[in-house]
Amino acid sequence: MNINRNFLNIQDSYLFSTIAKKVNEYQKAHPEKQIIKLGIGDVTLPLCDAVIKAMHSAVDDMSKKDTFKGYGPEQGYDFLKENLVNYYKRHKVELENGEIFVSDGAKSDLGNILDLFSVDNTVLISDPVYPVYVDTNTMAGRKIIFADANIENGFLPMPNDNIKADIIYLCSPNNPTGAVYDRKGLKSWVEYALKNNAVILFDAAYEYFISDSELPRSIYEIEGAKKCAIEFCSFSKTAGFTGTRCGYTVVPFELEFDNVKINKLWNRRQTTKFNGVPYIVQKGAAAVFTEAGEAQIKKNIEVYKGNAKIIADALYELNIWYIGGKNSPYIFMKCPDNMKSWEFFDYLLNTINVVGTPGSGFGKNGEGFFRLTAFGDRAKTIEAVERIKSVIKRQN
Amino acid sequence: MNINRNFLNIQDSYLFSTIAKKVNEYQKAHPEKQIIKLGIGDVTLPLCDAVIKAMHSAVDDMSKKDTFKGYGPEQGYDFLKENLVNYYKRHKVELENGEIFVSDGAKSDLGNILDLFSVDNTVLISDPVYPVYVDTNTMAGRKIIFADANIENGFLPMPNDNIKADIIYLCSPNNPTGAVYDRKGLKSWVEYALKNNAVILFDAAYEYFISDSELPRSIYEIEGAKKCAIEFCSFSKTAGFTGTRCGYTVVPFELEFDNVKINKLWNRRQTTKFNGVPYIVQKGAAAVFTEAGEAQIKKNIEVYKGNAKIIADALYELNIWYIGGKNSPYIFMKCPDNMKSWEFFDYLLNTINVVGTPGSGFGKNGEGFFRLTAFGDRAKTIEAVERIKSVIKRQN
Repeated sequence: MNINRNFLNIQDSYLFSTIAKKVNEYQKAHPEKQIIKLGIGDVTLPLCDAVIKAMHSAVDDMSKKDTFKGYGPEQGYDFLKENLVNYYKRHKVELENGEIFVSDGAKSDLGNILDLFSVDNTVLISDPVYPVYVDTNTMAGRKIIFADANIENGFLPMPNDNIKADIIYLCSPNNPTGAVYDRKGLKSWVEYALKNNAVILFDAAYEYFISDSELPRSIYEIEGAKKCAIEFCSFSKTAGFTGTRCGYTVVPFELEFDNVKINKLWNRRQTTKFNGVPYIVQKGAAAVFTEAGEAQIKKNIEVYKGNAKIIADALYELNIWYIGGKNSPYIFMKCPDNMKSWEFFDYLLNTINVVGTPGSGFGKNGEGFFRLTAFGDRAKTIEAVERIKSVIKRQN
Repeated sequence: MNINRNFLNIQDSYLFSTIAKKVNEYQKAHPEKQIIKLGIGDVTLPLCDAVIKAMHSAVDDMSKKDTFKGYGPEQGYDFLKENLVNYYKRHKVELENGEIFVSDGAKSDLGNILDLFSVDNTVLISDPVYPVYVDTNTMAGRKIIFADANIENGFLPMPNDNIKADIIYLCSPNNPTGAVYDRKGLKSWVEYALKNNAVILFDAAYEYFISDSELPRSIYEIEGAKKCAIEFCSFSKTAGFTGTRCGYTVVPFELEFDNVKINKLWNRRQTTKFNGVPYIVQKGAAAVFTEAGEAQIKKNIEVYKGNAKIIADALYELNIWYIGGKNSPYIFMKCPDNMKSWEFFDYLLNTINVVGTPGSGFGKNGEGFFRLTAFGDRAKTIEAVERIKSVIKRQN
């Protein structure tokens, strides 16, 4: 038996393990210090009451023979998909039920979708980047090219007609930078994809953080996108489902390559290699769309967005260049005094006991930058920002 | 963008859709008739009380900030993995926590594991077979060879030293036949795999139905298996989790090919393309191993096994050849009077309104056979068997 040797080409990422090691060592040497973590990419507020009630009720359904649910549809229950169709309608995106596939999360689908594409395609990925895009394609042996994201382009690279790519990853609002494409930006990518017979894999996991009504929350708000794009979304950040696991992927009926409908291929992949999301979880996800559920998750999102504003306002005051923090839970800041990413990490940890994520861990263009996140506790976020302001001088 | 054209080689299975169509048409034409379905491969009894209680408590955990769970370990929580280590110990199989990966079901992992293996491997699959083994490898473009399962070998094909295979699927107790390998049979396969540098993918989804203590419930009961086998198991049939979704895969630390530890590759695959099983579901699964949980799921299994015995006893009485039904929820019977599989299907539906699954739908060696399942209601199973006995004459 021969293994898939492409796995040996994946670069081990020591980013989060190195952070953990440094933090643990510091805490051990200084047990009296209160470290504040602003590096975490995970939600901290509990599930909202409407979701909790719906899940209790679903657990009860599973306890009685008449309401018990065995195998569900691999594509998800209609009661959830109908809510998603209506949700998209609000952004003037018309979808059919059969174009939506409920999944156990965007991460799974962003990797598994690659089953559908030949390994000889060329992949285009922004740098800095969510590492999963790179690793899943490396595993399959695809050629990867990078589009530079930097201060000059506002961390939103635009298509280059001289570069030929077949599979394009776009993440907006972006992880790790928090940058958000406007309509014009996405339109350029859709045009490029249509012209080059490419597919766009659009990661919309953070769309719920967009409050500026001018910014697109779905790529299907752009004309022609249904002919070139697959959209991945999730309840993880929208409704705190990181440990509850539910997402959804949209594969439009119009999307075709080589005269083959991609919706049909994905349906085949999912019915063969997946068995659906737990009934209980789907019932919880559906409750997000009730009046009570929507009000409750909005309240949680406002807490995180408030945290982001507190961080962003401090950086503005310090005249530090940053992006994100408005329509995103992430803030990507330039390290002050031209420090390198890890240098700034060590400085913050050792002087004021604040932890963030070095931008260089997300790719070469992340060097000299630093990611802060808004998912922490409000009081601790305020305290962290005060500490930052106490040691960082205003930049010129 | 080029699609993965191997997808176009997957044969569309019309087995279950054809069954549904025929049943619907008959019911429409004869609305007064009460059709009994013994073809279903899904559980019908609700989740046991211990699981329900644990899930309610886990839902409550998710409602409070102090006990809320965000991202969990991709490999599963220790509270569940420790139970699984102890469960294996009872069959004298010693595993380490890190050798167990909690998943959303055996079907997902049986497909996803193939990411780890080169597409130039040759795959060996029994016929008749659970269609997922064939379809997942066809998608990837691997060469598949079949091992004939038939009356002569008791539907348990043995290795043939003249045939070289790299990836071997074994399912015991078998779906669809219900046949179970004994120690000697599995030992031959382990020896073949070790000699031929092959990997065995051992599907143990029905192991909980084994009551004969002489029969192996895990392939790791066979010496040397840790050096050549990956085992897939699930709470689906054990504890009625088909709609709740939880399984587990064992990848021993000893398993190596090309000097690469397969455990490390699978860990990399799962941390990159999967985000773990819902906390609530894992809490439910862990409750299966409590004293109350174990007593309750055993009671459910006894109901299903009682149904299987009722069917098997009737076939014995009618002198109809069959296999399974004792250490399995499936009974694979020879069609009486040398009928073909679909001929017998039509006969049962039209004369006595009983539905089963034509064996020919699982592969060429299934022709002339018929699958009945024990997952139905007790009273309906008795009624179906009475109807069968009323029209089928004793075979010579």
